[in-house]
Amino acid sequence: MSKKRIETVLENLSERGISQLLVCDPRSIQYLADVYVEPGERFLGLLLRAGAEQPTLFLNRLFTAPAGIEAEVVSFDDTEDPLALLASRCDANSVLGCDKNLPARFLIPLMERNVASGFALASDAVDDARAIKDEQECALMRAASAANDAGMAQFKSLVHEGVTERAVAAQLEEIYQGLGAQGHSFSPIVSFGANAADPHHEPDGTRLKRGDTVLFDVGCRKDEYCSDMTRTFFFGEASDEQRHVYEVVRQANEAGKAAVRPGARFCDIDAAARKVIEDAGYGPYFTHRLGHQIGLDVHEPGDVSSVNEEQVAPGMCFSIEPGIYLPGRFGVRIEDLVIVTEDGCEVLNTYPRELSIID
Amino acid sequence: MSKKRIETVLENLSERGISQLLVCDPRSIQYLADVYVEPGERFLGLLLRAGAEQPTLFLNRLFTAPAGIEAEVVSFDDTEDPLALLASRCDANSVLGCDKNLPARFLIPLMERNVASGFALASDAVDDARAIKDEQECALMRAASAANDAGMAQFKSLVHEGVTERAVAAQLEEIYQGLGAQGHSFSPIVSFGANAADPHHEPDGTRLKRGDTVLFDVGCRKDEYCSDMTRTFFFGEASDEQRHVYEVVRQANEAGKAAVRPGARFCDIDAAARKVIEDAGYGPYFTHRLGHQIGLDVHEPGDVSSVNEEQVAPGMCFSIEPGIYLPGRFGVRIEDLVIVTEDGCEVLNTYPRELSIID
Repeated sequence: MSKKRIETVLENLSERGISQLLVCDPRSIQYLADVYVEPGERFLGLLLRAGAEQPTLFLNRLFTAPAGIEAEVVSFDDTEDPLALLASRCDANSVLGCDKNLPARFLIPLMERNVASGFALASDAVDDARAIKDEQECALMRAASAANDAGMAQFKSLVHEGVTERAVAAQLEEIYQGLGAQGHSFSPIVSFGANAADPHHEPDGTRLKRGDTVLFDVGCRKDEYCSDMTRTFFFGEASDEQRHVYEVVRQANEAGKAAVRPGARFCDIDAAARKVIEDAGYGPYFTHRLGHQIGLDVHEPGDVSSVNEEQVAPGMCFSIEPGIYLPGRFGVRIEDLVIVTEDGCEVLNTYPRELSIID
Repeated sequence: MSKKRIETVLENLSERGISQLLVCDPRSIQYLADVYVEPGERFLGLLLRAGAEQPTLFLNRLFTAPAGIEAEVVSFDDTEDPLALLASRCDANSVLGCDKNLPARFLIPLMERNVASGFALASDAVDDARAIKDEQECALMRAASAANDAGMAQFKSLVHEGVTERAVAAQLEEIYQGLGAQGHSFSPIVSFGANAADPHHEPDGTRLKRGDTVLFDVGCRKDEYCSDMTRTFFFGEASDEQRHVYEVVRQANEAGKAAVRPGARFCDIDAAARKVIEDAGYGPYFTHRLGHQIGLDVHEPGDVSSVNEEQVAPGMCFSIEPGIYLPGRFGVRIEDLVIVTEDGCEVLNTYPRELSIID
């Protein structure tokens, strides 16, 4: 599996005229070498070279490579200089493709040492491969979203008058684990009332009261793959305006999903959902892109946004998450994950989207 | 406060012959501008320039700057190019100091656009300022460690025969929140038995059995500042060898702390603790540096390690965390935080270090 993925990446690289690539992103390294390490401030790199038998993994001795790893492993400890080890394996006469996340503390010294004839951003060669999920990955994405659907049903039952966002949020991880997931795929958003009008609100000590919106934007990581879903409920009652805004967002969510098919551009999909919200007069209150790609990372490159003119292709997986945010009052967002199929898309989330009042 | 900190950083920069600095690290931006944003893949930067009235913050419109922020705020949305905005405010005829964490996806385009006459790593100008905690910061570090001490007492009571590491780990966050902390300062390590021999083990489904070591390496974030402490217990019983290893590590912890005073080098402190373990014949089983600096981040630059010949100075705060790891068998680590004083150090953790058997 790793071999086939590496071949795809080297082909992508070759189209860009690049023959060596330094991958640093831990999830890209997992994708290509089946080993996951979070190195913190330490150096971690996977060097791919055209024509090489296998890639080379630069790994601090604090971490262990799995037996049978299909890579040459170069180990070092905290007192050694991993960039010197890397330099000894780079071709100084060729451009080095760089991971977009390679931090300046490694990149600037590599430049100063002239380990390559030039440095170019090239991790899109990996990102493009990762964007098209293979059958095994699609099955894992489905399973992660199934756990998220099951989780949402339980999360809803945690909500009662006076509970704080923080107290609800702190209980989610155990529920995910009980469903066979390993934990959150991102820090969960639990927003009550006016807090839901901030799309990136972090759970705090706000207490739930009647008439509040209750927004859960949550996801789990299961067998390494991420889920991500948003549902917005109402506590006790919903005003006519809340019901109207909810319905607009729900229709925008449906319109976005209906626009997904091979050949459609990401910006077309964004526009289809955005038009519903604009036509209802809430355009200025939908303040973010429609969605993002997802897989081993919860945010993968390639926005579903007005500026991304790339076409979608079968196997791509991304979120459709329109929202309306009325500052100081309330917010509604409804988010599902989809996988592009040959003639449309498969929606990974089955949790109901009908307006629901918690009592 | 921000003003004084920025002055210190500009002085540090000037000593390096640099007149403009791009800070990207969210915690450094918090330190300098009192606003904390985790931008994910989006651009976030604080530009400091010698002679400028105030710094410039480049902030995606998804995030809001607090009222009264002492910075010029340049906002942009997902469809705009923040690097063009940054370029318009850089001096193209001077070197741009770069944050060590500036990712290649921003750094390489900035280089290609020639926004500066050169690019140099310069975030040590900020790191050096952050390394010396002022009185306000020392008080916050003490409070975070006090919450961690109180937490450890409760964590110990979660341990019983057959419980999994994961189930214990999932309960810690709520306990921290009950103690007034906001949550973990890092992903908690809860290791039973042989798992404790891997210093970076992640909690899994391993169940506790008699004779296991029980290692908690945990910390909370309270009012933005981090705590970090390790205690190792024994469940049901401790063998003579376990008792001996524990005592060696405990003495190494004491020896490390006793070596802390202004003028001592980090490597001297590392050596003082390491010698105890080496003299006992366990040298090869202490596989990592003795400690790390800590503050707004749980790991701040400046290791307590054999290769760091810098001298410590009053106000520095770091961990002393020797360990012995016997692969496949068990591991012991005992960690405290210290702040360097005029004539030694203040130990922030008061939780007992005597051998303790949980029954």
